[in-house]
Amino acid sequence: MKRTFVLFCLIAPLLAALATQGQQARWIWYPGDYDIWLSNKFQNRRTERGTFLPVFWKMDSHYVLMDFHKIIQLQQPEDLDIAVEGEYQVKLDGKLLEGKPDRVTIPAGKHKINIKVFSQATVPAIYVKGKTIVSDSSWLVTFEDKEWIDETGKASDVSATRWLQADFSSFADPDQLPSAYRLPVRPEFARTTQVNGNSRLVDFGKETFGFVVLHGLSGNGKLSIYYGESKEEALSEQRAETLDRLIVNLPGKRDSIMPLSKAFRYVNIVTDNNVSLDSVSMLFEYADIPDKGSFTCNDATINQIYDVAKYTLHLCSREFFIDGIKRDRWIWSGDAYQSNLMNYYLMNDNESVTRTLYALRGKDPVTSHINTIMDYTFYWFLGIYDYYLYTGDKHFMRQNYDRMKSLADYVLGRRNKDGLLAGLPGDWIFIDWAAGLSKEGEVSFEQLLFARSLEALSICADLVGDAEGAVRYKSLAADLKQKLFAIYWNDDKKALVHSRVHGRPTENVTRYANMFAIFFGYFSPEQQQAVKTSVLLNDRIPKITTPYMRFYELEALCAMGEQNYVLNEMKNYWGGMLKLGATSFWEEYDPSKKGVEHYAMYGRDFGKSLCHAWGASPIYLLGKYYLGVKPLTAGYATYVIEPVLGGLQWMQGKVPVPGGEIDLYVSTREVKVKAPFGQGTLRIRSKTKPSGIEVNAVAKAGNWYEIPVAPGRDYVVKYTAMP
Amino acid sequence: MKRTFVLFCLIAPLLAALATQGQQARWIWYPGDYDIWLSNKFQNRRTERGTFLPVFWKMDSHYVLMDFHKIIQLQQPEDLDIAVEGEYQVKLDGKLLEGKPDRVTIPAGKHKINIKVFSQATVPAIYVKGKTIVSDSSWLVTFEDKEWIDETGKASDVSATRWLQADFSSFADPDQLPSAYRLPVRPEFARTTQVNGNSRLVDFGKETFGFVVLHGLSGNGKLSIYYGESKEEALSEQRAETLDRLIVNLPGKRDSIMPLSKAFRYVNIVTDNNVSLDSVSMLFEYADIPDKGSFTCNDATINQIYDVAKYTLHLCSREFFIDGIKRDRWIWSGDAYQSNLMNYYLMNDNESVTRTLYALRGKDPVTSHINTIMDYTFYWFLGIYDYYLYTGDKHFMRQNYDRMKSLADYVLGRRNKDGLLAGLPGDWIFIDWAAGLSKEGEVSFEQLLFARSLEALSICADLVGDAEGAVRYKSLAADLKQKLFAIYWNDDKKALVHSRVHGRPTENVTRYANMFAIFFGYFSPEQQQAVKTSVLLNDRIPKITTPYMRFYELEALCAMGEQNYVLNEMKNYWGGMLKLGATSFWEEYDPSKKGVEHYAMYGRDFGKSLCHAWGASPIYLLGKYYLGVKPLTAGYATYVIEPVLGGLQWMQGKVPVPGGEIDLYVSTREVKVKAPFGQGTLRIRSKTKPSGIEVNAVAKAGNWYEIPVAPGRDYVVKYTAMP
Repeated sequence: MKRTFVLFCLIAPLLAALATQGQQARWIWYPGDYDIWLSNKFQNRRTERGTFLPVFWKMDSHYVLMDFHKIIQLQQPEDLDIAVEGEYQVKLDGKLLEGKPDRVTIPAGKHKINIKVFSQATVPAIYVKGKTIVSDSSWLVTFEDKEWIDETGKASDVSATRWLQADFSSFADPDQLPSAYRLPVRPEFARTTQVNGNSRLVDFGKETFGFVVLHGLSGNGKLSIYYGESKEEALSEQRAETLDRLIVNLPGKRDSIMPLSKAFRYVNIVTDNNVSLDSVSMLFEYADIPDKGSFTCNDATINQIYDVAKYTLHLCSREFFIDGIKRDRWIWSGDAYQSNLMNYYLMNDNESVTRTLYALRGKDPVTSHINTIMDYTFYWFLGIYDYYLYTGDKHFMRQNYDRMKSLADYVLGRRNKDGLLAGLPGDWIFIDWAAGLSKEGEVSFEQLLFARSLEALSICADLVGDAEGAVRYKSLAADLKQKLFAIYWNDDKKALVHSRVHGRPTENVTRYANMFAIFFGYFSPEQQQAVKTSVLLNDRIPKITTPYMRFYELEALCAMGEQNYVLNEMKNYWGGMLKLGATSFWEEYDPSKKGVEHYAMYGRDFGKSLCHAWGASPIYLLGKYYLGVKPLTAGYATYVIEPVLGGLQWMQGKVPVPGGEIDLYVSTREVKVKAPFGQGTLRIRSKTKPSGIEVNAVAKAGNWYEIPVAPGRDYVVKYTAMP
Repeated sequence: MKRTFVLFCLIAPLLAALATQGQQARWIWYPGDYDIWLSNKFQNRRTERGTFLPVFWKMDSHYVLMDFHKIIQLQQPEDLDIAVEGEYQVKLDGKLLEGKPDRVTIPAGKHKINIKVFSQATVPAIYVKGKTIVSDSSWLVTFEDKEWIDETGKASDVSATRWLQADFSSFADPDQLPSAYRLPVRPEFARTTQVNGNSRLVDFGKETFGFVVLHGLSGNGKLSIYYGESKEEALSEQRAETLDRLIVNLPGKRDSIMPLSKAFRYVNIVTDNNVSLDSVSMLFEYADIPDKGSFTCNDATINQIYDVAKYTLHLCSREFFIDGIKRDRWIWSGDAYQSNLMNYYLMNDNESVTRTLYALRGKDPVTSHINTIMDYTFYWFLGIYDYYLYTGDKHFMRQNYDRMKSLADYVLGRRNKDGLLAGLPGDWIFIDWAAGLSKEGEVSFEQLLFARSLEALSICADLVGDAEGAVRYKSLAADLKQKLFAIYWNDDKKALVHSRVHGRPTENVTRYANMFAIFFGYFSPEQQQAVKTSVLLNDRIPKITTPYMRFYELEALCAMGEQNYVLNEMKNYWGGMLKLGATSFWEEYDPSKKGVEHYAMYGRDFGKSLCHAWGASPIYLLGKYYLGVKPLTAGYATYVIEPVLGGLQWMQGKVPVPGGEIDLYVSTREVKVKAPFGQGTLRIRSKTKPSGIEVNAVAKAGNWYEIPVAPGRDYVVKYTAMP
């Protein structure tokens, strides 16, 4: 518990710099293997009323046998210290060293070191540290070295072996095996306790997560703990979603820590007569990922929404980005896609993103969609692309390109004769939780996401140097996009219709494909404007009741400059949850519901999750569409700052970029900006020509001005906001 | 150590019968998963001079998350006792039961029980026992149940989920988790000990395998154990292939058992001055697989060869059929193929065969040939077919058909433009250990094995009801066979030539393709007779120096009725090893070598294995071509007994068949036979018409007679052998 990878994330850019100088040793492994292994452990922590509840899709595993190698060029002989998780052997220049050496001396000159590791239960991993040589991503790995020898002792030509670059982790302690990694905890105490006979209702004051601790437990008999995100849930012994049951047999007083961390605000502890306890506390379990982004403004409700969104996202950012902390505690691609985007505006923790993307993808052979959901396969492709855009990390693209291709092949193999995707047996067409939403036939939303995925894949093909793939995927994307409009665009309704059934487009219009097509830039300007009225602001189109799809709905409106409208929506919708006492944002919120109705879902009284990552989208909206910071090219090499107050008097905040944060203050008369990195463009609309020291405003049509932002300078821009 | 699966193999037919009545509970798992898991553990026990030495191909793993289910129809309510290896949940009729129940009551009527298990480090496995319901292969399994529920609580249609039958194991003790399985051991004692200063040479009298035990060890310092299959190896501290090094720090006397079992006849124990020990013994580790087959005859040398072959095969029959016990202790497809065949004439242990075949195949995706060797991929196909022929076990065919198809696809995808297989980078074309053997171009032997594999696959396709596949593979096989003769048959040389290089058949003739084509029945009768002279009995064709290929060479000769010649060859070749003091048969034997030269291989003085499964082929030859017992249809439903004395005065023995053994005595004047099962035909050549009670001899051309053999009867057939 003492050391966590989170600490290292803080100094990741520094580490990356050092690694290239060969100074910092890290635990390394085969691409994605630790992530997949950890996700297996992680995703099997869900319980429902005391019963283990695992996922319903294929769980993959690490390769159990791994060869690591590096070719070394040394001026001086060098001692390498070696730590390994697993059984291992070391070869120097192809010759086996006796036993399991933990220190090897490499002579001066050019040499090859191989470390081959077997580990069935945990991931084969190595840590090597010398004066100049360390384990990092310059090491190559393979799961089959094909290195046989003939009867004369001659080694085979193993040129056919496919060596990949190792994954370079944030684990830096040779004495701490990667499999021993745990999130840190800290004690937290109850706010209030109500004792009622043999029950004790403990309130921790807000949604939280961790291990319940029973102090001074003694006696002989049974004890049950009913967990509640709401008081009603904790008090419902028959309906509480999670619980613990203990058999107590303690003559003297003892403290007892529950073995599994859980989500709750309230716990209701019910004992037999012969069991007693003094008090209840908890160990709060958290991924200690620091915030780099921030947002404050003159509107207290928005500030509160932002703070609760932050808390919600942090609770759901654990070893991986998960959906919600009560259930499912699983890694869902659609949910993670949003967490990734919020992350870029708050923690900007790369490792959380890559770990989550590796875990989602798993390994070949592909036997179903990611999480079994067709749309979730596509969010994975989009998530890879976004990650590259926000971080510029080409290494991760290279590590994943083969996995992208084989997943795309799986999808391409499931198209029907018209080249469209309908749900085949075993495919879950999710889209959103919405009553009566049709999944029949070929749904426009899925074709749209697939087209976008193919575009993303084409860009990645380009990045890794697969020119043929780039052309192929681009052409597949263009073809599908053409079909999308030919089949689903309804010129009377001024909208993409929801689906095609039995070969015919339906008349049904929903928001999904239409709002995505806006921020994908798929519509013509005329179509886009038409869709705003005919769909987005049209009350006759079925309303969205999940924060999940509200994320995209509000993003589409923001992308069309409707920040004033969206600010009100945020205050009503997220503010609505706050008025109901929410201390974290929910999986679903339907303002028309009353009282305990809000807690029900999935046919269960307390089935709904009251802390769901997709509830935290204001973080993203406020960062991207109010502060207005967006990368234009990978890793913020170029970017735009396009602040929109949207009815606020002033706002200020930070947006993380590689190597620092963009610092911003915006009022109706002044913009202050400082950026650490990249070539920025501040775009503002002003009645007067913006001015200030080193402010070189270039006028554009419609009172727009563009001001170059160079790194490391403090800009104070005077301007006059348009109403 | 107390209970082993071997015990259960003894009563396998009985168990199978009981299982269908639902009486016997067994641990069950996903097809092949336990076999693959156990093989990982098993194959990572090779060391070389104290260094861990794993395989050089991909090791696969079990699925970590598994759903088991069964639909149950009960007249009366029934209690089921449940044991599980892993975390688990139980659902009854789709409803989760609280906690981890170890007993569940199923009401009368039709019900569905699901048990879902997660286990990362070991194989998810269950054991269920009720009065009528038990865990057996009627349970279905899947690694992805795709069972999501919608927001109203409605479960998804999971009809798309692919459910397979569980593998039904021989593990029957609910308290013994499958992962805890170990081979049994028994103490064995040294034959002689020679002490020489600080060294002590211990001779166990013959090749053996197990854990060395040091008795009365005390003192302070270092101790090394050098293992030797020969005395020279044990005494060579620098060259012995395996060793143990201990740091001793024992004030009083203690016994110490080495952690890893090893192969040896001699151990040479070398200590520092301050270390002493009283004596050395060992724990002999063995798979307790009883013999069902036997062979004795009037020739003492042949009897001794048979006994040493049996001992050799038993030493190499461990959790799996392996190549040799000193090294590699790995599962090699070509070696296992021969062990399988010998097994059918000695132990007839189905589980050893299926476990070995599963382990060899591993899982998809296929990224290389089995053991990286092209020929070894093909032996796997042939091994599957043979298993079916000898056992009639259709269940195993069904469990493996998909794996056969994807492996065939891998091979088909590697054909060149002429539809032939040449070695691509990473392919090992092995054939045999033979100096100067060309692997260049397209080798005829590989095309021949591939054609045979496709034929086997076509038969399996038929068996599992894939009519389309059956036609496809049959046509691919016919096409390749046609090419084989069109390209490689050389009418001048009366032989298949070795290879085609740069598009042209070479003039090089080797034995390999020619001898296989004989017992595959690929030659015309004229070709076959010609090949016997032009290749098999032609001293100018390079000789075979491994027992591995002698297996097939002698089989080919036997198949052409050359038993007299082969008997002499056996006495010279295997008898030759015995004369050199062999107590088990070797990996390679070249009679032209002298003294310690015999121990060298792979460029190492003691590289050769002196106990290699492929050395045990007389078991197979004597059973199949002298006793002459061969199945004609699957599982010995029909079979032939065609005894050939080959120069012996008399022979007697048993050949195992499903449910018993065929008992046979043959002299020049009498054949006695009793069979437990199936419809047999005794075929003998006789000067006089064979006679005896219930002996209905039907005369055939050339003094041949066929006598029907019904099950359960003792036949005594009087006849007059032809010279």
